[in-house]
Amino acid sequence: MEVVFIGSGSVATHLALALKEKGVTISQVYSRTKSNAAALADKLGTSYTTDLSEIYDKADIYFYALKDGSFRNTLKSFDLPDAIHVHTSGSISMSEFDGIATKYGVFYPLQTFSKEKEVDFSKIPICIEAINADTQQKLLDLANLLNSKTYLISSEQRKKLHLAAVFACNFSNYMYDVSSQILEEIGVGFDILHPLIMETALKVQSVTPYKAQTGPAVRFDDKIITKHINMLKNRRDLKKIYKLLSKDIHKRHKKI
Amino acid sequence: MEVVFIGSGSVATHLALALKEKGVTISQVYSRTKSNAAALADKLGTSYTTDLSEIYDKADIYFYALKDGSFRNTLKSFDLPDAIHVHTSGSISMSEFDGIATKYGVFYPLQTFSKEKEVDFSKIPICIEAINADTQQKLLDLANLLNSKTYLISSEQRKKLHLAAVFACNFSNYMYDVSSQILEEIGVGFDILHPLIMETALKVQSVTPYKAQTGPAVRFDDKIITKHINMLKNRRDLKKIYKLLSKDIHKRHKKI
Repeated sequence: MEVVFIGSGSVATHLALALKEKGVTISQVYSRTKSNAAALADKLGTSYTTDLSEIYDKADIYFYALKDGSFRNTLKSFDLPDAIHVHTSGSISMSEFDGIATKYGVFYPLQTFSKEKEVDFSKIPICIEAINADTQQKLLDLANLLNSKTYLISSEQRKKLHLAAVFACNFSNYMYDVSSQILEEIGVGFDILHPLIMETALKVQSVTPYKAQTGPAVRFDDKIITKHINMLKNRRDLKKIYKLLSKDIHKRHKKI
Repeated sequence: MEVVFIGSGSVATHLALALKEKGVTISQVYSRTKSNAAALADKLGTSYTTDLSEIYDKADIYFYALKDGSFRNTLKSFDLPDAIHVHTSGSISMSEFDGIATKYGVFYPLQTFSKEKEVDFSKIPICIEAINADTQQKLLDLANLLNSKTYLISSEQRKKLHLAAVFACNFSNYMYDVSSQILEEIGVGFDILHPLIMETALKVQSVTPYKAQTGPAVRFDDKIITKHINMLKNRRDLKKIYKLLSKDIHKRHKKI
C-alpha cells in the first residue's frame, strides 16, 4: 500500500513513522514549508514537495494532517487523485470532501502529540468515519495494522468528542498549570505534585470521574473553600475559576 | 516503635498498614464509630477503642488522621500522653497543638487515597513540619522507613500546597467528569478518553504544564472556540467554565 502525507506536523510525523514501521510505503510528503517537508521526508526516507501540483498521484491513500485553518484551502488548490482521502482532525466534518473526492473519510487519532515524544499507537484510539463500507474497511485495516483500538464515530459525534477532549486534556492541563503557579509563589518545586497528578489520572481508568471526585467542594466544606478563596485574593482570575468549579462540583454531587 | 492511630479513614488505613509492614507496632486504633475502629484494628491485628479516655498512653507517636472538622474537638477531649503528636492534614496549621502537646508536628502524605485501592508509599511525597529538630528527625526517619520522598514544608506553605492540590487533583478530575458527561450525550464510552488522560498527566512529569499546554485556546483558534461554546448551549454552567478557562489560557500564553 502506498500513502502520501499532506502536512508535516506532530500528527503527520507520528502517524507516518508508525505506518512505515508496519511496512506501509510512504511515497511522498507535502508541506508548504520546505524545511518541515524535508525534515519529515528525511525521517521516512522518502521524497517531498512544497508544490501541490507535484503531488504524487498513484498512491492508495492520502492523509491530510493539517491545521484546521489550511485544510479547506489545500483541498481547493489541486486535483485530488482517484484514491482514498482522509483527514486526521477532530473538528472538521467529513463532508468537507463532498464533491471533491469520491472515496473519503476520517482517521482521527484521539491523543495529544508532541514532536519530540515517542507514541505507541497500540494505545491510541482511532476514530474512523467513511463515505462507504469499502473505504471504512480499508481504514479499519490500517488502524488494525497499528494495533490501535478502533471506534466508528460520525462527524456529529466527533465534534462533541473533540469538545470532551478539550476538557479532559487541555483544561485539565491548565489546572496543573494553575497549581504550578501557586507552588512557585511558595518556592516549592512542581515535582511534589507529580504523584498526585498520576494517581488522579490513573483512578479514572477504572472508576468513573464522578465516583473518583474528592476535595472540599464535594464534601461541601465551606470553611476550607472560604480559606482557599481568600488565599487567591491577588489572583482575581483564579478566584473566579475556583468559585465556579466548586459551585458546579457541589451542585453535581448534592443529594436531593 | 509504638504508634496509635486516632482516626480510621483512608489516610489512617493506608498509613497504618504501610507502617505495620515496615515493622512499626500499631498499638491501638481510635474511632468514634465502632464499626470503623473495629475494621481497621482487625486489618492491623491490634485493639481499638471508641472512648478517648481509654487511649493507650505508652506509645511513641500519635497520628491524628481525622476530618478537619473533628480534629480540634478531639484534641480538647482527652489528656494527650507525653509523646510525639502529629496530624496528617493539608489544611490544618501545626499551631493547633500549641499548649496541648510539647512535641508535635505534621506528617502530610500528598496523595489522593481511596480505601479500596492499594497505595505505594515509596511514590508518595510526605510533607513534614515539626516543633523541634528532634521531632523533625523522628518524622523524617518514619517517612524514610516508608521510602517516601520527604519535603520540609511549613504550615504557611502547606496551606497553599493544599490549594494547589485542589487544582491539580480535584479540579482536573472534574474536567474528566465534564468530558464524561459530554460523551454520555453522544453515546460514546468514557474509555475512549483513557489514553488521552494518561498521556496528559504523563507529559507534565517531564515538561512544565505551561509548555505542555495545547488546544484551541492556546492557539487562539476563535472559530473552534465559538463552535464549542455553541455546542454547550444547553449547559450554561459548562459554557461559563469553557469561556473562563479559554480566556485565562489565552491570556497566559499571549505574546506581548
